[in-house]
Amino acid sequence: MIRVGINGYGTIGKRVADAVRAQPGMRVAGVAKRSPDYAAVGADETGYDLYAEDAAPFSAVDITPAGGVEDLVRESDVVVDATPSGVGAENRPLYERHDTPAIFQGGEDATVAEASFNARANFAEASEADYVRVVSCNTTGLSRLLAPIEELAGIEKARVTLVRRGGDPTQTSRGPINDVVPDPVSLPSHHGPDVRTIFPELAIDTIALRVPTTMMHVHAVNVSLAEDADAGEIRDRLAGESRLLLVPGYAGIEGTGGLRDLAGDAGRPRNDVWENAIWEESIAVRDGDLYCLQAIHQESNVVPENVDAIRAIAGEADAAESMATTNEALGIGLERFEGRERAADRQIAD
Amino acid sequence: MIRVGINGYGTIGKRVADAVRAQPGMRVAGVAKRSPDYAAVGADETGYDLYAEDAAPFSAVDITPAGGVEDLVRESDVVVDATPSGVGAENRPLYERHDTPAIFQGGEDATVAEASFNARANFAEASEADYVRVVSCNTTGLSRLLAPIEELAGIEKARVTLVRRGGDPTQTSRGPINDVVPDPVSLPSHHGPDVRTIFPELAIDTIALRVPTTMMHVHAVNVSLAEDADAGEIRDRLAGESRLLLVPGYAGIEGTGGLRDLAGDAGRPRNDVWENAIWEESIAVRDGDLYCLQAIHQESNVVPENVDAIRAIAGEADAAESMATTNEALGIGLERFEGRERAADRQIAD
Repeated sequence: MIRVGINGYGTIGKRVADAVRAQPGMRVAGVAKRSPDYAAVGADETGYDLYAEDAAPFSAVDITPAGGVEDLVRESDVVVDATPSGVGAENRPLYERHDTPAIFQGGEDATVAEASFNARANFAEASEADYVRVVSCNTTGLSRLLAPIEELAGIEKARVTLVRRGGDPTQTSRGPINDVVPDPVSLPSHHGPDVRTIFPELAIDTIALRVPTTMMHVHAVNVSLAEDADAGEIRDRLAGESRLLLVPGYAGIEGTGGLRDLAGDAGRPRNDVWENAIWEESIAVRDGDLYCLQAIHQESNVVPENVDAIRAIAGEADAAESMATTNEALGIGLERFEGRERAADRQIAD
Repeated sequence: MIRVGINGYGTIGKRVADAVRAQPGMRVAGVAKRSPDYAAVGADETGYDLYAEDAAPFSAVDITPAGGVEDLVRESDVVVDATPSGVGAENRPLYERHDTPAIFQGGEDATVAEASFNARANFAEASEADYVRVVSCNTTGLSRLLAPIEELAGIEKARVTLVRRGGDPTQTSRGPINDVVPDPVSLPSHHGPDVRTIFPELAIDTIALRVPTTMMHVHAVNVSLAEDADAGEIRDRLAGESRLLLVPGYAGIEGTGGLRDLAGDAGRPRNDVWENAIWEESIAVRDGDLYCLQAIHQESNVVPENVDAIRAIAGEADAAESMATTNEALGIGLERFEGRERAADRQIAD
């Protein structure tokens, strides 16, 4: 039983905690949090032991922290650091002092850890490491998509436009309210180099903009293929990936709002979309250039990767075993469209 | 066992179906739907029998409808009509032909039914009727709030500014994108007259605007009280209402995004906020004028009212019994803040 401590209980931390709780062979040792807000009350209601450096403010909400952050590290076999960007690096000495392996998030610089991690692309590298960084939601989304394309047809070069959500639903001070903001205005956005922490040899250029939505990011992807492959072959290969969700045209899902609505209909916690959602009709090949559109749920798509990183670091499974266990425990892999889609194909062919 | 047919499986219909499924003494006889989209697939995955006037398009997604809408009416003791505004009125003759009681939504004109309905305010009136209209989300929200205020201190006059969401998350063609739109520009908005279908004697003026959000409506409420009451008394009275959720200041919930996030943390299906969410710190009384701010989740707050309307029309419970059963089955009444809030009060007093 791997005891997992969660340091930082915000958007990512609370989701990772719930995902860990759902896994066989893991339990949540506790969660560390600074302020006694609704999320702290939620953690207490869920039954997580709460740890805080400053316990006093929590008495106002009838929570008695079980100790400080160092106590949580002591109670943990692995720590998932889900603190704000940059704080993870400051925390690493604490984990080292206790000889406790730790997983950092993609907001940290790659140098925070020995390896950057994506379950589909480079699981094995993390098995050798004590400190691992799960790459950001956008990099995770690109890694999941590019790995099977590379295996099927080879990638001569990838060019991606990232249309990024401005903030999360609770971030009332972020923008833009009404603009399309080149961010950054000069190539490359940090995403290309970040993808190369997973695929060191990959030729990839990325350009990014922020827009007024809180729902999901959307990537317009172009890949110049090294070998011939048609859209049907690409589609079938992507359909075989458990963390890519192909959204068929008949589903009538026009935008990211529909994707979150689908997740709610499927009973997903917090309407989370853990997979890359790829509009199937967007998959096209023109003269060796592959195109597609995929949506990435910034609040949740790294959650299964954090769970896999825990198993990798603990040396308890290989990539396939870990991903299968994680998927099964969370309910990843919405198979509702699979057989039906073939029926739709047949009807079109008729 | 009341067999409930759901005619129309959109935003409201799918939620009412799931809420009915969760109740003791009721079952979903089936759902009627026009197009074989992701929601139809979702209904099939959930196990609801699907009915459609035109069965042919559904073969493309491997769904064989159990019959047409008339067949669904035949299989139902009560029909909940959750079709788009105006279609309900067209459907009433069908229900009458089969002598089947029906519940309509607030998008219909009040004349569609014998009684307009809010569980807290006028449950008994529906017990006498065969055709009942659950009032709109905004009218439901105002009725839940005004009923206890009327009982506590009497209402001389209510004045409400409704800041309405522009559309639902899946409605990609609605606006405004970036504007504040008086809607309508001349008093009254339809909400005031609609509230009077529940409280015929009430003096109420409403004014409404649409803004660029898909999350929730927000009401800025003023009530001139007939008798003296201070903010503390009002607060305590509202806290005793199961479908009003008082959000304490320490929770740190700044806007409607935080309210939906809270619902997700609490494990609510689809991040639904079934209660009126009232910012506790907004409750104030100045020279006999009560003020407060409440948020109304347009996709879900009428869902428990539809369930209660089914029991009312079936004559199976009184208001208190029905609301208690509905609340219990759905998990309405987030008590996570209750005892803790008193602790916060004590600390402030210390």
